[in-house]
Amino acid sequence: MNSTQKDWRTGQQSKAKRLARAAQALGQPGKRVVAEQATALLQAVIQPGDRVCLEGNNQKQADFLAQCLAKVDPTQVNNLHMLQSVVALPEHTALFDKGIAREIDFSFSGPQGARLANLVAAGKIKINAIHTYLELFGRYFVDLTPHVALIAAEAADAQGNLYTGPNTEDTPAIVEAAAFKNGIVIAQVNEIRDTLPRVDVPAAWVDFVVQAPRPNYIEPLFTRDPALISEIQVLMAMMVIKGIYAEYGVKRLNHGIGFDTAAIELLLPTYGEQLGLKGKVCTNWALNPHPALIPAIEAGFVQSVHSFGSELGMEKYIESRPDVFFTGGDGSMRSNRAFCQAAGHYACDLFIGSTLQIDTYGNSSTATKGRIAGFGGAPNMGADARGRRHESEAWVKAGRQAQVDPQQIPRGRKLVVQMVETFREHMAPAFVERLDAWDLGDSMGLNNPPVMIFGEDVSHIVTEEGIANLLLCRTPEDREQAIRGVAGYTEVGLKRNKRKVEELRSRGIIQRAEDLGIARREASRDLLAAKTVKDLVRASGGLYNPPSRFRNW
Amino acid sequence: MNSTQKDWRTGQQSKAKRLARAAQALGQPGKRVVAEQATALLQAVIQPGDRVCLEGNNQKQADFLAQCLAKVDPTQVNNLHMLQSVVALPEHTALFDKGIAREIDFSFSGPQGARLANLVAAGKIKINAIHTYLELFGRYFVDLTPHVALIAAEAADAQGNLYTGPNTEDTPAIVEAAAFKNGIVIAQVNEIRDTLPRVDVPAAWVDFVVQAPRPNYIEPLFTRDPALISEIQVLMAMMVIKGIYAEYGVKRLNHGIGFDTAAIELLLPTYGEQLGLKGKVCTNWALNPHPALIPAIEAGFVQSVHSFGSELGMEKYIESRPDVFFTGGDGSMRSNRAFCQAAGHYACDLFIGSTLQIDTYGNSSTATKGRIAGFGGAPNMGADARGRRHESEAWVKAGRQAQVDPQQIPRGRKLVVQMVETFREHMAPAFVERLDAWDLGDSMGLNNPPVMIFGEDVSHIVTEEGIANLLLCRTPEDREQAIRGVAGYTEVGLKRNKRKVEELRSRGIIQRAEDLGIARREASRDLLAAKTVKDLVRASGGLYNPPSRFRNW
Repeated sequence: MNSTQKDWRTGQQSKAKRLARAAQALGQPGKRVVAEQATALLQAVIQPGDRVCLEGNNQKQADFLAQCLAKVDPTQVNNLHMLQSVVALPEHTALFDKGIAREIDFSFSGPQGARLANLVAAGKIKINAIHTYLELFGRYFVDLTPHVALIAAEAADAQGNLYTGPNTEDTPAIVEAAAFKNGIVIAQVNEIRDTLPRVDVPAAWVDFVVQAPRPNYIEPLFTRDPALISEIQVLMAMMVIKGIYAEYGVKRLNHGIGFDTAAIELLLPTYGEQLGLKGKVCTNWALNPHPALIPAIEAGFVQSVHSFGSELGMEKYIESRPDVFFTGGDGSMRSNRAFCQAAGHYACDLFIGSTLQIDTYGNSSTATKGRIAGFGGAPNMGADARGRRHESEAWVKAGRQAQVDPQQIPRGRKLVVQMVETFREHMAPAFVERLDAWDLGDSMGLNNPPVMIFGEDVSHIVTEEGIANLLLCRTPEDREQAIRGVAGYTEVGLKRNKRKVEELRSRGIIQRAEDLGIARREASRDLLAAKTVKDLVRASGGLYNPPSRFRNW
Repeated sequence: MNSTQKDWRTGQQSKAKRLARAAQALGQPGKRVVAEQATALLQAVIQPGDRVCLEGNNQKQADFLAQCLAKVDPTQVNNLHMLQSVVALPEHTALFDKGIAREIDFSFSGPQGARLANLVAAGKIKINAIHTYLELFGRYFVDLTPHVALIAAEAADAQGNLYTGPNTEDTPAIVEAAAFKNGIVIAQVNEIRDTLPRVDVPAAWVDFVVQAPRPNYIEPLFTRDPALISEIQVLMAMMVIKGIYAEYGVKRLNHGIGFDTAAIELLLPTYGEQLGLKGKVCTNWALNPHPALIPAIEAGFVQSVHSFGSELGMEKYIESRPDVFFTGGDGSMRSNRAFCQAAGHYACDLFIGSTLQIDTYGNSSTATKGRIAGFGGAPNMGADARGRRHESEAWVKAGRQAQVDPQQIPRGRKLVVQMVETFREHMAPAFVERLDAWDLGDSMGLNNPPVMIFGEDVSHIVTEEGIANLLLCRTPEDREQAIRGVAGYTEVGLKRNKRKVEELRSRGIIQRAEDLGIARREASRDLLAAKTVKDLVRASGGLYNPPSRFRNW
């Protein structure tokens, strides 16, 4: 075909046709759509085989639009290719049961992980890949650009400008990819206001606004009750603070989700203060507003926090601490998962998180048999950022420890720490000879098993048995025995070579609590700056307003 | 200090004071500032020691604001800490000469590289670090949040909404970091309009708008005249297309700047077509709108292009090819360096670019003696994205080739290709035993020499002597001899072990043109789909409008 004959505006034409169908289905042109017509709108604009981005974030869910999409007629709308950060709601998997959707590319599926595995077994879903968030956003601009984006915002004005409030999260990335490639953007909002507190997404980027019958669902994913932190977790947290944070001078960091890292946060104003670390570690964070960080903030440990999303109940506290958090002219937080993941990847010296399984190479995964869970932001933040060039004390020191060939040009290294107790609940060992991910990968038809963090990228493994510093290992045997050496009474741990492990300890590759000058009896819950959720509320001066499920007083 | 006494709103208070000083200096409140008052505005809002982000991009420059900043009184405004993607203008370095600025964190400094080196030698500047763009953006949200951001846009409306036009580039990242952390955002615009073609930055994120006396400067950085492509470059491009693109099935990619990659782009519709590669390689790009890509687009090779910035003269062509490019409702391109770098890092299977020096480890750098050039996006795109999890043919195959231990869980690998002629102009060898970066790092006081791309991340080195596949190397000797084996008659090449090199060739680690079935006599300029800029204009159907310096007819 001669190039002059080629039609270069098929995307624009397709969008125009979809908008015309919508106007006809709704009986009116314009952006405003009443809730009762939302399903009809989706049926009018979505075509079979479309790539549809349904906003499901770590926290915020476009749940009303998900429900409407699950109600379309599968004979008219089918074979959709879903793009989602998080698969969280029953409606997300119902789309596949009903034959509305057929393929998916996603990042995280916590509560729906088992359901996804069942759908795979039943041949009702094709999972193309599990991504880390920033990777999925990147593909939105390359080969997974959405035809239709279904998003959630707090409020819209008459023009269609959107206010996302504290949970901006993924919205800017999704909307930009769709709006500038002839995609259709449909927003569910909790309310329509004459004037918005601030504009987070300009009206011209939004095609339709639906006022949902109830506020969008938000999950308080990062809230942990300090009452449930064990003294073993306190011990591990002390080792991390003294053996890693103080040792490397870690100022810029991200914490994963869970009780292990909550314990660290709650020890900063007590144990960290005793060690004289205020201002020397943990000053700048890429982190959701964890309630467990309140005491450290109040104690003056924290200079800044940029967030992927917000956390339910933290709104008033954040508004009252604008020197620490990123907030808008309206006072409420501005989060942004894309920028915060970029910051977590490139501007942080350390990522620390927990996992479910670690093998003898140090590979870790939260994917276990029968659960396709995904990893969210962990692969991005738990990878050595090899494009990084700026220096910091922590990064340079970690790089020096890992350097094998003194003639080779030195490079820095990110500190990537995996923190686990040797046995999880129900006595499941955290250390295994073979990750369940191998079988899961096979069942999903993947070439490479779904690993959360690769052993090559891990710098330290911390258990109640001590710290294994993988940077200092020089041979595969060093590495394997360093891991077995902190694996305690698991089968992996029992297979250690005792003499080799003692050699590694003499080389500082394994450090026990006592090697760090930490007496196990010191590891008391009394060290926690807050022992209950109520303590957190008190520490916040009453500004933190925990969701009811965390209130037991 | 008791936390209840601590002032948590110092940032808000500081901003309020700065705005009050501005209103006083300007004799009025409000956002609109006339050009004549711009210097007074800067003097009113900027304080000594501030972090000031001065928008200098690869292409677009906030040049008027740079000139105004260079005119402030250094006794009042001094010791600034500049944050800049690109140091491109004489005013950028003049700030240091005049004592207005003292420190800098940046990414790229092409034309001012020698001047920067002189300022370092004179003790007038402290260069903290050279970053890759996305890394610098990440730090804007962690420890380098700007107090003041000086940006450039195409137009503003009365409210202060901004239209950036095709060159959005870094603006969204800079503005978001400043606007949501009590920073002051000042935009220079080319015009004030009643209605904007589209809104790229919402008004609430902008504090002041200055109509500049002339349009902001834009550099056509990515335009290469096909007339200057040599037949050696054609040969190298043929090897890349057949030996790498076809071999791995590379669909998603980024090309660096220069004639080497322009040659590849111009061979796709001829040599690539002959090899039957249309639709099989080079379908989705993270790339600025290179004029050299026009023939491949017209031939139907290219499905999509997302861009960091635009390119002068390509505006009408882009507007006429919306199926390929990301464009707004107004028809013009929407670029975004942050998202495109995320895409380049995580969604592309291959990065290919040129360099000035490569050592025997495969480390490469464009930093040479006396020039502090910086690397722009190359470190980000030329690094193995270790957080990536989704599979593609190219990524899986590259990972398999690099896998040493078959028991270890396999991971994919990015293809990172360095493409150089063995001798540059003036017979400077591209291969060296020791990079100039070592000396440059010393002179800058860095712990690690400034390397653009580390050898560990490079998968292939291509010269006119052939392709060295570093993925297949198993020992340091393999690697060193693979590099010497394609280094031709440079001193590095002459030190090759001939028997080892032949062994590497038999193992497919070194491939000569003839090993790929490419006869050197085939490598003719006749294969270029466009031989001149005029040919490019013709190929575009007259839509491409090259800047005058590229017009020689």
